[in-house]
Amino acid sequence: MCAFVRLDPSMPPKAILFDVFGTVVDWRSSVADACRTCFTRLGLACDAEAFADAWRAAYIPSVDRVRSGERPWVDLDTLHLENLRSILPTFGLVTLPEAELHALNNAWHQLRPWPDSIDGLTRLRTTYIVAPVSNASIRMMVNMSRYGGLQWDAILGAEVAQSYKTDAVVYLRSAAALGLHPDECMMVAAHNEDLDAARAVGMRTAFVLRATEHGPRQRTDLVAGQKCDLVARDLVDLADQLVR
Amino acid sequence: MCAFVRLDPSMPPKAILFDVFGTVVDWRSSVADACRTCFTRLGLACDAEAFADAWRAAYIPSVDRVRSGERPWVDLDTLHLENLRSILPTFGLVTLPEAELHALNNAWHQLRPWPDSIDGLTRLRTTYIVAPVSNASIRMMVNMSRYGGLQWDAILGAEVAQSYKTDAVVYLRSAAALGLHPDECMMVAAHNEDLDAARAVGMRTAFVLRATEHGPRQRTDLVAGQKCDLVARDLVDLADQLVR
Repeated sequence: MCAFVRLDPSMPPKAILFDVFGTVVDWRSSVADACRTCFTRLGLACDAEAFADAWRAAYIPSVDRVRSGERPWVDLDTLHLENLRSILPTFGLVTLPEAELHALNNAWHQLRPWPDSIDGLTRLRTTYIVAPVSNASIRMMVNMSRYGGLQWDAILGAEVAQSYKTDAVVYLRSAAALGLHPDECMMVAAHNEDLDAARAVGMRTAFVLRATEHGPRQRTDLVAGQKCDLVARDLVDLADQLVR
Repeated sequence: MCAFVRLDPSMPPKAILFDVFGTVVDWRSSVADACRTCFTRLGLACDAEAFADAWRAAYIPSVDRVRSGERPWVDLDTLHLENLRSILPTFGLVTLPEAELHALNNAWHQLRPWPDSIDGLTRLRTTYIVAPVSNASIRMMVNMSRYGGLQWDAILGAEVAQSYKTDAVVYLRSAAALGLHPDECMMVAAHNEDLDAARAVGMRTAFVLRATEHGPRQRTDLVAGQKCDLVARDLVDLADQLVR
């Protein structure tokens, strides 16, 4: 990873906007833990990590159907629950008790922050407006933030824009809600696709390496795209670079 | 003021939602101070408190035109700036330099919390989701909260609902954004009209006395409506009643 810096120090951003799943919180181990607890309770022999991966893999196509206009706006809790039901047969399950499905779905509201996230966000907030621009719903972000101790200035993202990333409107509406031009905002993500979309509407971008977001054999997003303004090892490193 | 309590302790609310102007922040003295500073700088002999009162008085009719559908959604910064221009002749002013108008308009982003607000909100947040349901825009709430040290779980209210209180949709959309039924939310305000509207959609209500919001000769909202669930002297008293 090349720690190049293209950010003009005379024109700092006013707001630092964050992708959340994978960038701020470790969704995979958190969801796998919830699945494991559920499977143990029900006496099921399913691989919890594989289940979490399959559940997450169903996310992009389901969001795409909303983003493309194929179906009207529905929030991510609804999509997660649909996707949960859809992957059960892959794991040899016909169904689960309805209460278990809803409890499992709630695992996405209780995701552990990466060890550096709280410290990094806290330091960044001393200088910048800090907000999530995530595909999570407002209630999911509120619950997740209270659970993990994350503190924001506002909850922005998909629900405020009524579309999903990487739709340009999500980034543009989030900047507008803060009364800022896109180039006064820096989008932070562990995913180059997210950063490419933010950059396309004029935002500045910071890549944060999360080499084990998808587990120990991760192959994607191990290197920042060449057009990123900043590259950081984690959110503490990002704060070191952005907070004087 | 009668400190009656109708709240069923076996069914506590999950979210405490706040009116902000007057309830959490002292808009009148803050705006008057900004006006006084501006008038002194420009050598104008205007009564700063009377100016702040006139500016605020123009607020309700301007919001009503949006609420009624007479004009499409515009945010409160836009309305404040229009109202500022409209009251200048009343004070014998033809106009002010454009930069002064915008600086004055920004006074609404820098409103001092009442002395009890930070302590009360902080204690309530240990137990409940705490969010503003204000007519302020998201950027105004973000700036005001950073200025005054107010901490919320999310910024809800007019902008999220694209209408203004006391339109029912503002309360309903705010509860929905938290994934809550209205009766799981308690609206807190120093204004009975706001609480009446929240109660009409099923929210619980708490009246907070702000006897000098409109200055030393205030005549309105000195007594809670009979249907309020809670009545509090200030936000610390509210926390005393709601946080065990």
